[in-house]
Amino acid sequence: MVFGVLHGPNLDLLGVRDPDTYGRQTLVDIDAALGRLATELGVAVECAQSNHEGVLIDAIHAGRGRWAGIVINPGGYTHSSVAIRDALVGVALPFVEVHLSNVHAREPFRRQSFFSDVAAGVVCGFGSASYELGLRAIVGVVVAGRSARA
Amino acid sequence: MVFGVLHGPNLDLLGVRDPDTYGRQTLVDIDAALGRLATELGVAVECAQSNHEGVLIDAIHAGRGRWAGIVINPGGYTHSSVAIRDALVGVALPFVEVHLSNVHAREPFRRQSFFSDVAAGVVCGFGSASYELGLRAIVGVVVAGRSARA
Amino acid sequence: MVFGVLHGPNLDLLGVRDPDTYGRQTLVDIDAALGRLATELGVAVECAQSNHEGVLIDAIHAGRGRWAGIVINPGGYTHSSVAIRDALVGVALPFVEVHLSNVHAREPFRRQSFFSDVAAGVVCGFGSASYELGLRAIVGVVVAGRSARA
Amino acid sequence: MVFGVLHGPNLDLLGVRDPDTYGRQTLVDIDAALGRLATELGVAVECAQSNHEGVLIDAIHAGRGRWAGIVINPGGYTHSSVAIRDALVGVALPFVEVHLSNVHAREPFRRQSFFSDVAAGVVCGFGSASYELGLRAIVGVVVAGRSARA
Amino acid sequence: MVFGVLHGPNLDLLGVRDPDTYGRQTLVDIDAALGRLATELGVAVECAQSNHEGVLIDAIHAGRGRWAGIVINPGGYTHSSVAIRDALVGVALPFVEVHLSNVHAREPFRRQSFFSDVAAGVVCGFGSASYELGLRAIVGVVVAGRSARA
Amino acid sequence: MVFGVLHGPNLDLLGVRDPDTYGRQTLVDIDAALGRLATELGVAVECAQSNHEGVLIDAIHAGRGRWAGIVINPGGYTHSSVAIRDALVGVALPFVEVHLSNVHAREPFRRQSFFSDVAAGVVCGFGSASYELGLRAIVGVVVAGRSARA
Amino acid sequence: MVFGVLHGPNLDLLGVRDPDTYGRQTLVDIDAALGRLATELGVAVECAQSNHEGVLIDAIHAGRGRWAGIVINPGGYTHSSVAIRDALVGVALPFVEVHLSNVHAREPFRRQSFFSDVAAGVVCGFGSASYELGLRAIVGVVVAGRSARA
Amino acid sequence: MVFGVLHGPNLDLLGVRDPDTYGRQTLVDIDAALGRLATELGVAVECAQSNHEGVLIDAIHAGRGRWAGIVINPGGYTHSSVAIRDALVGVALPFVEVHLSNVHAREPFRRQSFFSDVAAGVVCGFGSASYELGLRAIVGVVVAGRSARA
Amino acid sequence: MVFGVLHGPNLDLLGVRDPDTYGRQTLVDIDAALGRLATELGVAVECAQSNHEGVLIDAIHAGRGRWAGIVINPGGYTHSSVAIRDALVGVALPFVEVHLSNVHAREPFRRQSFFSDVAAGVVCGFGSASYELGLRAIVGVVVAGRSARA
Amino acid sequence: MVFGVLHGPNLDLLGVRDPDTYGRQTLVDIDAALGRLATELGVAVECAQSNHEGVLIDAIHAGRGRWAGIVINPGGYTHSSVAIRDALVGVALPFVEVHLSNVHAREPFRRQSFFSDVAAGVVCGFGSASYELGLRAIVGVVVAGRSARA
Amino acid sequence: MVFGVLHGPNLDLLGVRDPDTYGRQTLVDIDAALGRLATELGVAVECAQSNHEGVLIDAIHAGRGRWAGIVINPGGYTHSSVAIRDALVGVALPFVEVHLSNVHAREPFRRQSFFSDVAAGVVCGFGSASYELGLRAIVGVVVAGRSARA
Amino acid sequence: MVFGVLHGPNLDLLGVRDPDTYGRQTLVDIDAALGRLATELGVAVECAQSNHEGVLIDAIHAGRGRWAGIVINPGGYTHSSVAIRDALVGVALPFVEVHLSNVHAREPFRRQSFFSDVAAGVVCGFGSASYELGLRAIVGVVVAGRSARA
Repeated sequence: MVFGVLHGPNLDLLGVRDPDTYGRQTLVDIDAALGRLATELGVAVECAQSNHEGVLIDAIHAGRGRWAGIVINPGGYTHSSVAIRDALVGVALPFVEVHLSNVHAREPFRRQSFFSDVAAGVVCGFGSASYELGLRAIVGVVVAGRSARA
Repeated sequence: MVFGVLHGPNLDLLGVRDPDTYGRQTLVDIDAALGRLATELGVAVECAQSNHEGVLIDAIHAGRGRWAGIVINPGGYTHSSVAIRDALVGVALPFVEVHLSNVHAREPFRRQSFFSDVAAGVVCGFGSASYELGLRAIVGVVVAGRSARA
Repeated sequence: MVFGVLHGPNLDLLGVRDPDTYGRQTLVDIDAALGRLATELGVAVECAQSNHEGVLIDAIHAGRGRWAGIVINPGGYTHSSVAIRDALVGVALPFVEVHLSNVHAREPFRRQSFFSDVAAGVVCGFGSASYELGLRAIVGVVVAGRSARA
Repeated sequence: MVFGVLHGPNLDLLGVRDPDTYGRQTLVDIDAALGRLATELGVAVECAQSNHEGVLIDAIHAGRGRWAGIVINPGGYTHSSVAIRDALVGVALPFVEVHLSNVHAREPFRRQSFFSDVAAGVVCGFGSASYELGLRAIVGVVVAGRSARA
Repeated sequence: MVFGVLHGPNLDLLGVRDPDTYGRQTLVDIDAALGRLATELGVAVECAQSNHEGVLIDAIHAGRGRWAGIVINPGGYTHSSVAIRDALVGVALPFVEVHLSNVHAREPFRRQSFFSDVAAGVVCGFGSASYELGLRAIVGVVVAGRSARA
Repeated sequence: MVFGVLHGPNLDLLGVRDPDTYGRQTLVDIDAALGRLATELGVAVECAQSNHEGVLIDAIHAGRGRWAGIVINPGGYTHSSVAIRDALVGVALPFVEVHLSNVHAREPFRRQSFFSDVAAGVVCGFGSASYELGLRAIVGVVVAGRSARA
Repeated sequence: MVFGVLHGPNLDLLGVRDPDTYGRQTLVDIDAALGRLATELGVAVECAQSNHEGVLIDAIHAGRGRWAGIVINPGGYTHSSVAIRDALVGVALPFVEVHLSNVHAREPFRRQSFFSDVAAGVVCGFGSASYELGLRAIVGVVVAGRSARA
Repeated sequence: MVFGVLHGPNLDLLGVRDPDTYGRQTLVDIDAALGRLATELGVAVECAQSNHEGVLIDAIHAGRGRWAGIVINPGGYTHSSVAIRDALVGVALPFVEVHLSNVHAREPFRRQSFFSDVAAGVVCGFGSASYELGLRAIVGVVVAGRSARA
Repeated sequence: MVFGVLHGPNLDLLGVRDPDTYGRQTLVDIDAALGRLATELGVAVECAQSNHEGVLIDAIHAGRGRWAGIVINPGGYTHSSVAIRDALVGVALPFVEVHLSNVHAREPFRRQSFFSDVAAGVVCGFGSASYELGLRAIVGVVVAGRSARA
Repeated sequence: MVFGVLHGPNLDLLGVRDPDTYGRQTLVDIDAALGRLATELGVAVECAQSNHEGVLIDAIHAGRGRWAGIVINPGGYTHSSVAIRDALVGVALPFVEVHLSNVHAREPFRRQSFFSDVAAGVVCGFGSASYELGLRAIVGVVVAGRSARA
Repeated sequence: MVFGVLHGPNLDLLGVRDPDTYGRQTLVDIDAALGRLATELGVAVECAQSNHEGVLIDAIHAGRGRWAGIVINPGGYTHSSVAIRDALVGVALPFVEVHLSNVHAREPFRRQSFFSDVAAGVVCGFGSASYELGLRAIVGVVVAGRSARA
Repeated sequence: MVFGVLHGPNLDLLGVRDPDTYGRQTLVDIDAALGRLATELGVAVECAQSNHEGVLIDAIHAGRGRWAGIVINPGGYTHSSVAIRDALVGVALPFVEVHLSNVHAREPFRRQSFFSDVAAGVVCGFGSASYELGLRAIVGVVVAGRSARA
């Protein structure tokens, strides 16, 4: 059972950009840790990052019939991309929305998400641990049906 | 190291109230599962539930100097209680806000929280697993300093 | 067949507080009149008043499996209490929201109710007669299925 | 003592239109039941229906000096007609606003009424029983002065 | 040169309805006074009143090619009728919007007009004198081109 | 198979009123063209125009059991008439909302429609061709079930 | 009986500034015409202009006990000056708000006035004739009590 | 002459909670200082604190017929409690709303108060001195009638 | 005469994604049908789809001097892309905005379009027939000048 | 130690304007009382009033290096003057905002202040006593550092 | 060719007030630098500062027929003065709006300007360099017609 | 010292698209002029244009460690791209936001920018001169520290 992990725009700067807000781990570190956790949970993960909205949409389409669920950090597209939202709904895969920082404690526009209401659930504020919690969550949703929404 | 787990109003109905939305576990089941997870993580938990806003505030005050952090599901008080928010800020303990259901997929008024912007982070949508993820998260925040906000 | 009648905060002041707005009957008078009407309609009523949000929630929980429906005047909690709303939805009893005064003719914030959209119906503006009409209404809803919403 | 009962647009479809929402009684049935209730209460009713805003205004004008009060279901004009509101205020007759369905549980625009703040009170959500409760209410207002607003 | 004077809904109640707000003159009095003023100004007036939105629209259409301008008090339709607005724009006659009362000193919804931005100008607050000032104004607009907007 | 075509207020001015915005065809021309197109599509049309909201409601009621669907240009009532909306929903006939002009390119208030969300679909901006496209559309909806919403 | 006429900021540019919008008369012309009309009406006028908010307030204070009423065109201060509003209310003189242009047909911010709701009435859109109509109006209000608001 | 002083939720944390914002005095210190000031002003005070909304309402009811006025710091209930507002209005005692911190310089939601418009006046921003100024103010209101609102 | 047909993000999922909402035809089917209709109308079409906002902009630029008009379904970019809007305005080609589903009957954010006010017109709600109606419309606009907006 | 006391527009009308709202004391009376209180508190006051926004700004500039703090009643400029706000912040003197009337109980626009969030604190509603309380407050802020904000 | 440079309220504090935000140069320094730049550009400048709205309006009027364009920093009047806006439009001189600080990075109310939409362009955020850039810009607009808006 | 100049979507149409709004210079002309100005200022520029949001993000990332600052015209992405904003903040380079046209004088949605509050400053409205002023500004910010925000 394979899960997709999608990192949105600017997450390639991780470990570089504003470490007080986002932590010091690089994306390679995070993907490695997610791989280890996946193994522990008896599943596999495939990770990808892009700064291009269209590339993220293409990746979601490609995950159809291949992934059992998705952990996605849409980054700045969280607040503007109906197109990625539609892609996720279109492939009909359950997904968890994650954020490194607590979006509720930042600029007001970060409180509006085009993803939350169609996600299985949301995790935010725990740095790279948000991804790990998100992976645990989506595995629970898919394997054990553990979701209040599913 | 002890963590507080606070259940807000109507969570005593769990396993009874609208199981399609909230799952079939009772609060006793959830607290027991949290106790097992706490042991696994090398910490302890103390759990309490109340339908009374004032009782929840008193409980938070009592946790000062005793708890290392809090997992709180403020239930219906999420959207109205500045007083509980002030209590949490007042005792200066890091806390995680959790919800069983995905509050973003329900009535619009549930998207407004008086807690999210002062929480370490938020987890919602995974039924009773939201508590377990929340406990993992707050332990990570306190023990390992794993929070983008701390 | 027993129906619950719940009076929210400050209704213990009835007959005392601003009689031009709320009438001169005390709560004892109203409860007695509701008892007589209940007998006339072939049902029974159990009445309670509290200024405490949590006590009202507890009372609603206690009515589960005991009452066939509820007439509730949430008083000032009408405009702030998601917790009482959740309690009513949680016990899955049909209820009628009543108000002594015409809330639409008072301060603008009184036009927002957390109850109306999940109530069977609403009656307001007729002083203590609002309760009597509300009792007739909820009995009609439960006994005869007379509700456009049920 | 005669009371006017005014049915707004589309209520001639009653028993036909969307019976799950509005019930199966026709307007003739409702008017007959209101006539019986009026007799029981020692008053008389005169009922009229129109799809035309202007006809409803003319009817209200004609009720001046003839009716003691009005029960009105403004239907779709509830949300748009300042002109009917002005007619009711102009003839200075107390009136009760009634709705078959619970307007608070439908589209958001149905929560705005041009009538509620100048009505003696409001009853909604009980199908044809809303009219009967409304008639009891207006008779109480006029005969016994039973209104928190009068 | 003939000018139309149109009175909207409920203005047939004039001299009857709430004289403290609207004055004691009847519509017949007002139309007579307007006739005298028209003579003084060297023009003629044709006056009509209706409670029916459609009748007012028909009257405006009929004024096309016959009237040089219009004085209109749209009454309650001021705040809801795009259709009358479109009729006035459709016949391309300059018009003055008048109100007996000062609409800015009444309910907030009376500050929204569908007429003001396409009128030559607006006069409100002077009882029946509003009509006379409006007639002087529209004659000035048409005869002497005295309008900042024309 | 017969379809109703309803023209709202001021459309009787077509060919007269502001031809730069609305084109030079009269309503008679349009109805004739629609008749020819209906024949081409193997159906019939019945056309009516009124400036009266109530008359349009009556016409919709009369179409029940007679028409297979409706093409309606509600004109100025688009933005104010819950009553016509309710009539269309009440008779449960699929309908297409059409406008001669592009309502999105005019005054902001023209972007609010009480019809669009309960219509099968919407066509606007093509002058009298909007009607022809609307007729093709509704025939497609009814005959071939070609609607994303049906 | 003396009436004050106050011209707000930039009205000294009249006859100079944007004559297509404001007409070609200078302020001297307007004041002279108002003097002639005053004589015709059996009253006197005192006219003043200032670009300074404080000077206008001082002038209003000075009019107390001297003027019977005021015609004021607050110009750009219409939309920002609570202080001039308070001055007018403070001296308790009836006043008419006038505008040369139709403020409803210009920028949206010009529809907000701090004067209209405390004025006897409002006249706008008729160029310099607005002043003359305003003077007729205020004289009618004061002399004949002709105001729906007084 | 006795005055009530009511401290809302979390004020028991005073001297503990965020001293940079709220100062270092405990509630015992403040109540003692108020007692001394009361003696100086020739009156008495009775002080109480609760984290429970219902307890505060009960205390207000109990003050009826006993207190001459109230100084209340509603804490977090300032922004949510219609019920406490109704209690204050219900017992018809003049009251002053006080806050330790300047609520206008904090989160936007703290600018909305359910108390200010029914208070005699408001004092905020001066730490524990806010209570002393509030006591002076309410004594002035009651004893000398010194209030712009009374 | 060649017309461009542009399909925005996720339309490559057609026939796959949520067929109850979007129909069962694939994009290949739709393009083929459009080709046949174009032939019938005596014109040609060139069709393209992309999930990439930038690719769509490039395509529009490339259509300059080549296409006579455009039919575009901007998909999720409808609600966020000022850049595509600017491209369409920049190349100064008339275009029709089409949607498969009735955007007015879905989430509220789908009612905001950055395209409608600069389009010749809009067609929505008819599944793949929306494209065919859109092609007929744009051909009418370009060939016969049949647009109320052109 | 000298404190400035600034009275904004229309306060020269005190004792004259609407005494039911503002009390019967003149500004001379108030300034005299403030002088006596200042002596009692061991400080001095310098008082000034102007109806001119610019004069108030000049006065604040002149107070730099001379005054220890300011008590200001900005009158109608409270709601519009960013310029006076900037002057107060520019000279970096602590100040207290005072109002004679309870601004929260008057027109809604009076609840918006450009001063409150940069003031040390606010006092309103106590007639001329507001100034005295404000003077006590600012002296406390400056002398004893008694402010939650300083 | 002479250009006006107008400094609004509080800019006389420059070099004094909050140097971290506004820089350490005095207004004399800035005006001298602008004079040198003007010479370099082959034009002249006339500079003035006032805290009085009316004085700024008078200065703009005086610049008519004398200045070729204006650089204005309206300071706090940016957000409130329709009167200065009207003066600038009235004299029909092109102008550039400049600000020392980046108004978009400060309080939300500073994002609303009554000048930007009628300016040739806007420059903000560069301290005293904003003026120099503004002067280069307005000279470019006037001399070389380099403006996208002119 | 090298500065980046980034041109957003549709700016490749310059000299082609709507020359009345955007001027007749091509992007090549502008880049050449910027190169000459850079030489004059003793710095270098690197210019790039893309219609793709992701490409612009990639370019900003690539400028990290290479550029000293950025001049960016985000075009249509100004109003929607949190992702580009995050990229600019992520690389921690000072930047100036420029626009050819005066965005404040166009559609209301163009007044919302995701860039202005994190920019050093903003220049708009001067056609291609906006870029030159922007380059002067950013060089001043970086070289001389001339920014009120830095």
